[in-house]
Amino acid sequence: MRRRAFAFVVAAILWPASVLAATHRLKPTDGHPTFAVRSPVLTVKPGDVLESESLWGEWYEKAGGKWPGEVGPIAIEGAEAGDTLVVEILKVRPNRDTAVSTQGSRFGALVPDEGTALLNAVFPRGRYVWRLDRQAMTGTVDLPGSATKSITVPLSPMLGRVAVAPEGDEAFGGLWPGPFGGNMDASDVREGTTVYLPVLHPGALFYFGDGHALQGDGEVCGSGLETSMDVAFRFGLLKKKEIAWPRLEDAEHLMVAGSARPLSDALRIAFVELIEWLAADYGFDRADAYQLVSQVAVVRVANIVDPLYTVVAKFPKRYLPPPAAATPGG
Amino acid sequence: MRRRAFAFVVAAILWPASVLAATHRLKPTDGHPTFAVRSPVLTVKPGDVLESESLWGEWYEKAGGKWPGEVGPIAIEGAEAGDTLVVEILKVRPNRDTAVSTQGSRFGALVPDEGTALLNAVFPRGRYVWRLDRQAMTGTVDLPGSATKSITVPLSPMLGRVAVAPEGDEAFGGLWPGPFGGNMDASDVREGTTVYLPVLHPGALFYFGDGHALQGDGEVCGSGLETSMDVAFRFGLLKKKEIAWPRLEDAEHLMVAGSARPLSDALRIAFVELIEWLAADYGFDRADAYQLVSQVAVVRVANIVDPLYTVVAKFPKRYLPPPAAATPGG
Amino acid sequence: MRRRAFAFVVAAILWPASVLAATHRLKPTDGHPTFAVRSPVLTVKPGDVLESESLWGEWYEKAGGKWPGEVGPIAIEGAEAGDTLVVEILKVRPNRDTAVSTQGSRFGALVPDEGTALLNAVFPRGRYVWRLDRQAMTGTVDLPGSATKSITVPLSPMLGRVAVAPEGDEAFGGLWPGPFGGNMDASDVREGTTVYLPVLHPGALFYFGDGHALQGDGEVCGSGLETSMDVAFRFGLLKKKEIAWPRLEDAEHLMVAGSARPLSDALRIAFVELIEWLAADYGFDRADAYQLVSQVAVVRVANIVDPLYTVVAKFPKRYLPPPAAATPGG
Amino acid sequence: MRRRAFAFVVAAILWPASVLAATHRLKPTDGHPTFAVRSPVLTVKPGDVLESESLWGEWYEKAGGKWPGEVGPIAIEGAEAGDTLVVEILKVRPNRDTAVSTQGSRFGALVPDEGTALLNAVFPRGRYVWRLDRQAMTGTVDLPGSATKSITVPLSPMLGRVAVAPEGDEAFGGLWPGPFGGNMDASDVREGTTVYLPVLHPGALFYFGDGHALQGDGEVCGSGLETSMDVAFRFGLLKKKEIAWPRLEDAEHLMVAGSARPLSDALRIAFVELIEWLAADYGFDRADAYQLVSQVAVVRVANIVDPLYTVVAKFPKRYLPPPAAATPGG
Repeated sequence: MRRRAFAFVVAAILWPASVLAATHRLKPTDGHPTFAVRSPVLTVKPGDVLESESLWGEWYEKAGGKWPGEVGPIAIEGAEAGDTLVVEILKVRPNRDTAVSTQGSRFGALVPDEGTALLNAVFPRGRYVWRLDRQAMTGTVDLPGSATKSITVPLSPMLGRVAVAPEGDEAFGGLWPGPFGGNMDASDVREGTTVYLPVLHPGALFYFGDGHALQGDGEVCGSGLETSMDVAFRFGLLKKKEIAWPRLEDAEHLMVAGSARPLSDALRIAFVELIEWLAADYGFDRADAYQLVSQVAVVRVANIVDPLYTVVAKFPKRYLPPPAAATPGG
Repeated sequence: MRRRAFAFVVAAILWPASVLAATHRLKPTDGHPTFAVRSPVLTVKPGDVLESESLWGEWYEKAGGKWPGEVGPIAIEGAEAGDTLVVEILKVRPNRDTAVSTQGSRFGALVPDEGTALLNAVFPRGRYVWRLDRQAMTGTVDLPGSATKSITVPLSPMLGRVAVAPEGDEAFGGLWPGPFGGNMDASDVREGTTVYLPVLHPGALFYFGDGHALQGDGEVCGSGLETSMDVAFRFGLLKKKEIAWPRLEDAEHLMVAGSARPLSDALRIAFVELIEWLAADYGFDRADAYQLVSQVAVVRVANIVDPLYTVVAKFPKRYLPPPAAATPGG
Repeated sequence: MRRRAFAFVVAAILWPASVLAATHRLKPTDGHPTFAVRSPVLTVKPGDVLESESLWGEWYEKAGGKWPGEVGPIAIEGAEAGDTLVVEILKVRPNRDTAVSTQGSRFGALVPDEGTALLNAVFPRGRYVWRLDRQAMTGTVDLPGSATKSITVPLSPMLGRVAVAPEGDEAFGGLWPGPFGGNMDASDVREGTTVYLPVLHPGALFYFGDGHALQGDGEVCGSGLETSMDVAFRFGLLKKKEIAWPRLEDAEHLMVAGSARPLSDALRIAFVELIEWLAADYGFDRADAYQLVSQVAVVRVANIVDPLYTVVAKFPKRYLPPPAAATPGG
Repeated sequence: MRRRAFAFVVAAILWPASVLAATHRLKPTDGHPTFAVRSPVLTVKPGDVLESESLWGEWYEKAGGKWPGEVGPIAIEGAEAGDTLVVEILKVRPNRDTAVSTQGSRFGALVPDEGTALLNAVFPRGRYVWRLDRQAMTGTVDLPGSATKSITVPLSPMLGRVAVAPEGDEAFGGLWPGPFGGNMDASDVREGTTVYLPVLHPGALFYFGDGHALQGDGEVCGSGLETSMDVAFRFGLLKKKEIAWPRLEDAEHLMVAGSARPLSDALRIAFVELIEWLAADYGFDRADAYQLVSQVAVVRVANIVDPLYTVVAKFPKRYLPPPAAATPGG
């Protein structure tokens, strides 16, 4: 049984060497307001690379402007419910010199929102335009009311939204994260990270969008440095491998992104799925895994502003067993 | 009962120190089960250093053993309600070769607890004894049920509990964090960090205890690598400086530790106090500060197991203005 | 302004006397798994009556059976976004002799669920079949493990789900409540109650289903006495009257049903919308209304098991002003 | 400081009563700010009646005035940890013609509070003085900003606070509810109700105070019609009967008052303890009891404003077995 589990890492990624891995280029012109089952704009094979970009639109240009929506869906050939979609993030880079962040009104962690409805006067809207230096990879913002008149910070580009079509007939607006991924606003969704998403429909139907040149933990004002991104993904497929929540992996960590309100439940989801992962694929007893994550796990509050909050629980890969140890029954 | 408390004070062995910036040595023999107003075991002056240790006891030796309680209170001469107590943490080092971590039953983030009461069968208790190598600063634990039979991790010693006596007549058990500090279980309370606590009573009445040789974010199983610590603190006082929640500072970050349930409220407290700090002491407009923390703040979930959960919000000091700009009216 | 507001109650219900109010009979054969924009199965005029029934299906017959879905959508002629749909509930009566309630596994308030994910062993599934006496309007259940071998209780039939199509392109599964109504599981949705729902799409697109012959507050095990119902509704329309959340009214109370997680936020939504209602339509100052609801409001926890929890806040109508007082500016 | 507490004890005017089932009269002159272990102001025997009154003070007279504190502690002879204290509420009646309710600032369910810290402008303080008619048992308030200039409502007197001394050395301020009772603000604590509290210290050490002439569910603005009350209690003792949370009983219902944040956890505590009660004392299987409470329980949100929120879950006594069936093993 362990052998099968370990095989998943090494060989189960369907990327047949016999077929040439194609590189697709997609120039999106319009986006979708929901994560939902739709006819794909493109179909790719496992192993293929997609070069594309996230959408820019009216929302970025003026207060109250319309959100451009998300790009997709991309169908992955051979994906069926019960599989896991693998998305290696090869590139996420700002492709213009401006980013926008808005705050206040009825959105954000430190003001009443649609959920936490209160009687107080509304906190004033704010709209900050950041200047991006793509060579230096920095962003600069003016702070009109402060003693410090402007600040420059290093960028760390990420994608707020990567998703598959949600289960059944459901269609969630672009602000929603969930088991299908979506608007997790997790800054670990960046170059060098591999995202695993549960396949819930034939073709998986992958969406992406919502570039952030930078975002603080929790994204507490409700937006990062919002801008459009050049992106590249390589797709893979783990056949008959079921996961309950989005998983992420980079050079350092295994990660799970749990989304729920209240925040404590998002954290619980992330940790329980992380422990199940360690138990199923790496030979840890669940009780031992509980002890271990309690001492070495890192938690990132990804967002505390969306309809569901997202928490990423991370396990350092240096504590994973070497291949042999992982397959005791092998 | 009060008599016993006083007896303990008398029995504490003190080595009173010299006059200017004295160094005190306190060898505690017994601890207190609550953070409360009590006669001090020692009185120090601002600038003085205290060398002492946290308590070891029956709890560490066997399942169901009694917790040794916290050391203190230490009175700081001249401290009055409305001041801020400054505690520089000069040393937090394990002073024995064993640490213990327990999990399950009715305590921890991933099982029903006293708050989240559910009907399910209780998750089995577990008790893991970690072997500490104080030269290498590592800890090793056996994982009986796992393919990986043992794991060794680097230590990062901290104090789970630093506190002043709470407001008014209140007395909170050792598991409670709050505006007075207490059982925050924040891994940033370590060597090199300065802790600021609100003074709520004459003398401030400082307590400490609950050493962790290591702890993961959230301390999800309910305990870290629990052991006793050699500690050293230097005390200071900010006169007529009122703060609402514990603040921390190290070489990299300004930090606030907010404690509440649900977890989202702990995060809100930490961020609002952080923004007020940036506004009051560093010349930032509150709206600008809201924007800035949203892009650069780091969030650490300190604990999600205690009667109140604790979140630490961190602001990188490299974005603070140079001294002149920080004091526009100065 | 007040005149217009008061007119809403008396005259703004579009129910033109010149047109004969038709009675429609709809025998549904199949249901929908989501609340979403779809072609209507029937179009009615304001003032018309619909006689129909909620669906029975496999779910009721055996463990793990498929849910039959909800009936609809019914289009209401002339309804446009920004209006309020009025649904008078003329009849909700069980139409068979059996009701089913299931509990345990991963659904319900007193066990871990999809949100509150925990490591404990799953609470055993249970399935209770209740015998309904439709003459006496009672239900009887056997209690196999108890000293009391069976219990008989009076019924109080209700509909768990009444909805319009949600905003935009969103499609929420049948378990979801929200601003569009949906699976509120509010026992006040019963004969004699009028439900007000925000119109978000042309025709409003009304759905209903999920009869409960009885349900306790909170529906804590996750289901009431689930059975099929004969129903009758009379539809009306308040043109250019916008509401944010479902409102209910019966002989005794004005009510608002707020849905959110955590539960406190559902309560806040319900109260804030109730206060806005009292302020906009009945001449109360918001601060005065806050004081008044604090002393006389009744709160019902409708459900604490669905993806969003629902709380109903109720204001006794006997404290409403007589018509004249309600229109001070009239 | 302790000396002052003792002085108060000496100053309390006691009318010690006759021997068997004595009636004691206590005229309190000062109260305590915390629920804590203290020397009793009076010792009574099980079966004895206490006639007394709750305190009036500066808080009721002017904004920002000092709260008078709670009356007690009353020791019950023979009470030991592990017993249950029984308090029959024989009388709770307003003893003056005025009641006060305050709202806004940083307290209440519909504004940011100490827990839900937000950046918005503070909601204005309000202070409403209600005129009580003790013959008609009604209260009348002026509504300065409203079309309706005043409103008269029937009273329903209750005690916000009944408590025993909390476990161990803890001392909770008067605003706190908990397993020890305290500031539950449950309107079911009224004439005709029997309150059961866990005994945690010798003598139990009973406190009471905080009369409300009326209070809406949830006490959302943060206060009811606050006034002083004439009270009478009869005390009893259930030896070696342990309960985890306060239980209440009147002619209609068995009730449990659970206190926690978030609100969902208060509800879970109340239901789990109610199910354990039905199982332990009335012969119900836990799974059957879960099903039964799901269909017939009534939930009252007692308060959603205090440091812990309180929910009362009620089970109708008409579904309890007759005495014989209740003790299958008896």
